[in-house]
Amino acid sequence: MNIFGNNIKFSIFGESHGVAIGGIIDGIKPGTKLDFEKIDQMMKKRNHRAVYSTQRAEADKYEILSGVVDGITTGAPLAFEIRNADTKSGHYSELASVMRPSHADYGAYVKFKGFADHRGGGHFSGRITAPLTFAGAIFKNELEKKGIFIYPHILSIGNIRDKSFLEDDGASIGELGFFPVTSEKIKDEMLSYIESVRADKNSCGGIVEVAVCGVDAGFGNPFFGSVESEISKMMFSIPAVKGIEFGRGFDITHLTGFEANDNYYYDENKNVRVKKNNNGGIVGGITNGAPIIFRVAVKPTPSIFKTQDTINVKTKENTALTLEGRHDSCIVPRAAAAIEAATAMVIYDIIS
Amino acid sequence: MNIFGNNIKFSIFGESHGVAIGGIIDGIKPGTKLDFEKIDQMMKKRNHRAVYSTQRAEADKYEILSGVVDGITTGAPLAFEIRNADTKSGHYSELASVMRPSHADYGAYVKFKGFADHRGGGHFSGRITAPLTFAGAIFKNELEKKGIFIYPHILSIGNIRDKSFLEDDGASIGELGFFPVTSEKIKDEMLSYIESVRADKNSCGGIVEVAVCGVDAGFGNPFFGSVESEISKMMFSIPAVKGIEFGRGFDITHLTGFEANDNYYYDENKNVRVKKNNNGGIVGGITNGAPIIFRVAVKPTPSIFKTQDTINVKTKENTALTLEGRHDSCIVPRAAAAIEAATAMVIYDIIS
Amino acid sequence: MNIFGNNIKFSIFGESHGVAIGGIIDGIKPGTKLDFEKIDQMMKKRNHRAVYSTQRAEADKYEILSGVVDGITTGAPLAFEIRNADTKSGHYSELASVMRPSHADYGAYVKFKGFADHRGGGHFSGRITAPLTFAGAIFKNELEKKGIFIYPHILSIGNIRDKSFLEDDGASIGELGFFPVTSEKIKDEMLSYIESVRADKNSCGGIVEVAVCGVDAGFGNPFFGSVESEISKMMFSIPAVKGIEFGRGFDITHLTGFEANDNYYYDENKNVRVKKNNNGGIVGGITNGAPIIFRVAVKPTPSIFKTQDTINVKTKENTALTLEGRHDSCIVPRAAAAIEAATAMVIYDIIS
Amino acid sequence: MNIFGNNIKFSIFGESHGVAIGGIIDGIKPGTKLDFEKIDQMMKKRNHRAVYSTQRAEADKYEILSGVVDGITTGAPLAFEIRNADTKSGHYSELASVMRPSHADYGAYVKFKGFADHRGGGHFSGRITAPLTFAGAIFKNELEKKGIFIYPHILSIGNIRDKSFLEDDGASIGELGFFPVTSEKIKDEMLSYIESVRADKNSCGGIVEVAVCGVDAGFGNPFFGSVESEISKMMFSIPAVKGIEFGRGFDITHLTGFEANDNYYYDENKNVRVKKNNNGGIVGGITNGAPIIFRVAVKPTPSIFKTQDTINVKTKENTALTLEGRHDSCIVPRAAAAIEAATAMVIYDIIS
Repeated sequence: MNIFGNNIKFSIFGESHGVAIGGIIDGIKPGTKLDFEKIDQMMKKRNHRAVYSTQRAEADKYEILSGVVDGITTGAPLAFEIRNADTKSGHYSELASVMRPSHADYGAYVKFKGFADHRGGGHFSGRITAPLTFAGAIFKNELEKKGIFIYPHILSIGNIRDKSFLEDDGASIGELGFFPVTSEKIKDEMLSYIESVRADKNSCGGIVEVAVCGVDAGFGNPFFGSVESEISKMMFSIPAVKGIEFGRGFDITHLTGFEANDNYYYDENKNVRVKKNNNGGIVGGITNGAPIIFRVAVKPTPSIFKTQDTINVKTKENTALTLEGRHDSCIVPRAAAAIEAATAMVIYDIIS
Repeated sequence: MNIFGNNIKFSIFGESHGVAIGGIIDGIKPGTKLDFEKIDQMMKKRNHRAVYSTQRAEADKYEILSGVVDGITTGAPLAFEIRNADTKSGHYSELASVMRPSHADYGAYVKFKGFADHRGGGHFSGRITAPLTFAGAIFKNELEKKGIFIYPHILSIGNIRDKSFLEDDGASIGELGFFPVTSEKIKDEMLSYIESVRADKNSCGGIVEVAVCGVDAGFGNPFFGSVESEISKMMFSIPAVKGIEFGRGFDITHLTGFEANDNYYYDENKNVRVKKNNNGGIVGGITNGAPIIFRVAVKPTPSIFKTQDTINVKTKENTALTLEGRHDSCIVPRAAAAIEAATAMVIYDIIS
Repeated sequence: MNIFGNNIKFSIFGESHGVAIGGIIDGIKPGTKLDFEKIDQMMKKRNHRAVYSTQRAEADKYEILSGVVDGITTGAPLAFEIRNADTKSGHYSELASVMRPSHADYGAYVKFKGFADHRGGGHFSGRITAPLTFAGAIFKNELEKKGIFIYPHILSIGNIRDKSFLEDDGASIGELGFFPVTSEKIKDEMLSYIESVRADKNSCGGIVEVAVCGVDAGFGNPFFGSVESEISKMMFSIPAVKGIEFGRGFDITHLTGFEANDNYYYDENKNVRVKKNNNGGIVGGITNGAPIIFRVAVKPTPSIFKTQDTINVKTKENTALTLEGRHDSCIVPRAAAAIEAATAMVIYDIIS
Repeated sequence: MNIFGNNIKFSIFGESHGVAIGGIIDGIKPGTKLDFEKIDQMMKKRNHRAVYSTQRAEADKYEILSGVVDGITTGAPLAFEIRNADTKSGHYSELASVMRPSHADYGAYVKFKGFADHRGGGHFSGRITAPLTFAGAIFKNELEKKGIFIYPHILSIGNIRDKSFLEDDGASIGELGFFPVTSEKIKDEMLSYIESVRADKNSCGGIVEVAVCGVDAGFGNPFFGSVESEISKMMFSIPAVKGIEFGRGFDITHLTGFEANDNYYYDENKNVRVKKNNNGGIVGGITNGAPIIFRVAVKPTPSIFKTQDTINVKTKENTALTLEGRHDSCIVPRAAAAIEAATAMVIYDIIS
């Protein structure tokens, strides 16, 4: 179903080449002044153009339909839409029957009995993260008022890896900007790698790391409502995400308990701290006050310009497919913005 | 909250040292004959004793309270309980104020304002996976009637790693037995490693891999109800889980799109197949008919007998803690049974 | 929250004088051809003009934003909007502080801390039943394809009462048209009564009766998901509804069990029938195959042109209020359309 | 489904003649001291014996299984059970195939494909209100700590009618005791009527009225989460309930808007008051601070000892049925206790 949230509710709609995409947000406090500058900045992040991005110059202009008077929320559901423009769908006709490898096409074909809007990926398009980003931007701003900050980080693209937020006792945790890495050098290497795969009609993926600072201990629920459960459920909603790990994640399985355990101590101000943060701020599904750290694996975008083997579900024959149009050769930087926004929404829901 | 499911509903209750643990299952088809032998076998798996397990000889005898007449379900909610026995909680008194590192203790202390039952981990105890295992055993059996089979696999313990279900075109996918690895040699190495950490008053973790075979294409939902979202939400409910990845997971970020993409083809019987299964049977949140493959990181059990630094929340002092009692030095094999059961429940929910 | 449904999901948004009202529907089968003629007819019913209605000539032109290609549903969420036009809100400024008696104003003022959009009732406006009607029209059509028909009936307006669907063994159950009563005479009496209250700057209410024919036995759930629970939850979502009763409803309390009980019998075709239908087709929360019959009390519209005593929450003084603008003197006929649509939605949800 | 609640969650289980009935409550604040005396008193009310009640001397001894240590809640789910005793089900065997009129039997037979436990009504038994009453008693106590009081009232039994809480400006609103009516005279008349129908092997129903005092203005939600929606959904979960109305309810349709409207005024302490309370404390789905008043129609218990016509679903023949065993000839007083408890639960959920 298309609805997220326990304490807040977010309903999403839209197809890449339909009339509009958008959503309804229920649960923003009445009297909240929307910071349109920050919303615009977040939308821009998700949409920014570079060597690795599609050239489709989608403006992503949103319109608020309800729930806001004079820039201030009323408490009623906030609905908004982003009209689709520039949607030449001519070159998509082949894709009604030829299934793009590693896209939702085939599963959707079966599920929706051939009626899914296949143009541009339809409802499965990464474009649907635009409403998520809009909504997340509002909640991110609300979190900041409570002293909670979300820092996205491109940890790796292909084999080029930045240093993790977990290293050096979290020294690099913080705002890393528009292309969020810890050095210009890493950025240049990543961009140059992206350019090389693009030139080769290929694509690449990467890992996005997130730190959430300022969440107090004691949030979350045992078992089915663990903080990891809620965050992971949200992250796997974002197209192309194939893995998530908290704290040391999979690497923690190489440690012994003595090495892995996060020992508590009182600091000079009698605040509870952990010496390490191998659990990424969550133990037993509940926050412990340390920064929440997780990493999300984003697969290489499946839309590539190399010719690929696949099937035609109408003719029931094997066939070859050569995609046309505009496609990002690396969606990781844009995914980082969607992940940032999604994190804001799920954290707000958890602490509400 | 303590409730799982969209189409089925499973409510869980209990604390390690309370009167009983158990649950209520709603959504089993009326007229289902329960296979108590299979249920018992699954319960035994979760509970089996070896070098790595606690010596607490909990019988885990369940009693069905409702929803079943003469071994056949009525369609009404099936409630069951497992009475706790042998719960000497004397040596737990210190733990009311001294927080075990990397346990839920501190987060629970804050969340529940000091009222949580701390004995044996209370509601956060791994023991609460017993009801999950009971319920999962029922659904696993129902899935098998539909031709869907779940195969758990201990992929690694510490640095000892078995070969993955993804290797050799999935040749090793199948039932691997009570201690599910692909060779006696690997099992011996793992057991010997577990014994060595136990002897060192330490603990270790590992990775559990799961293959689900027989799920047709077209299940799951776009966005917030993706199959990965649902499975991950469930898996992070199991204590000690810190990561999950589908198909190639984090490693897929090292491939290019051309390498990563799962090309479709028709086999000789005109069935749709994928040449690789890098996406683990799920694309765009929807199943594509290939085996669903995922891996779950289980951290080293935080209960170790080495002395550890931590805090006393009553005195607000730093202190040292030396645990007593019975604790597994490696919960991975038992977690594998809980993960198997939990997988059955979530897959049944998805296809219902 | 603004979301309805267990098996389908319907999210609603909008304020009377905002940019637009609308909703998102999730759960319409892919491949459903929308019957726009029937949708328009239902929208017209909810909107029709007569002596008793406001003169605000709102066109209620909807636009579908997603989920439909060439008039056929894709399976993705169907979002739609109705732009608000002709919304002169000048004469509403007083209502920011002066609370209209028996309107949501005061409760909303407290709940939304003064930020609610008070113009035209804002999110509480009866106008928000337009999206409900649009969505219900789609589901009504789908129900008819399954042989399930919904018949609304204006049972009474003020003290003018038509005969009930329960009388004469249900002989009058059926389609009663645009102003759904069983005779022209009753209609004339009702219209003339409405005209008289209108002339007196007053308003009146009435009772809407609904019959749902064609629902098989065996739908619904024991306890919290009883058919009555689901229908009543929906009906009380419609502004101005103050009561609901099933079958004989409150009157059944005047009967003995022997009189009240609905005896079963097999008809000549071995179909199960009830001799009476005092339970309105539902026993123990489950349908029994007889027509589902219920009645809904619609209070007199609280917007009247007589001067009324009330309070000013800004000055904290008692005051008098004389409303201006356009207001229906009787919303019962329009409510009947909203109730019809809402019934379609809830019945579809129950049988899905 | 068997789960209630938005902010709290209550899962219910059990069949009249199964091993046990009970439930799981999630959402009681940690550190809540349970008042067992008050719980017992409420359980006793639901269970009290008089001319009108069954003679089955069910003790209704509950046992708490989790979530409570030393009488204080831990914050974890509180599970409890009531073992069934004295369940001779011999005389129920006929009822596997002969459908009792106006009982759930036939709908359940179809829904559960013949597998429902028919003994004593199984999961549809009024006995399942015992867990509801237990849980409600806890929440009622919590509400009282917040200054919110729930007063149940037997407004009528058959044609014998007490005066309503709405009369005399609510003068009779208050605690009315074990058999909650406003005078001994009314009580005697009611008891004597109940005795007369019992002697005639028949049964009778009645109306239960409830006042909830102390709920502030501003609770509830527009549309699908209206206070009336939530309360009605809960009330129709209670077996035998066939109608609900708020404030003046159906009678309000006989008033004009001017008569019906509840005018606000400031009292001497500048508190907002209503002159009348025709809306029963709820307008637009939101509380306005006046007492919440509603009435619930309870049908005559369908279990009567007169011979009745009905069907045998095994033989597919019409037949006659003469019930044996113990059955209340009037469940209204016991229903009043269940309604009181259910009200506590739903109000607690709304204000949480």
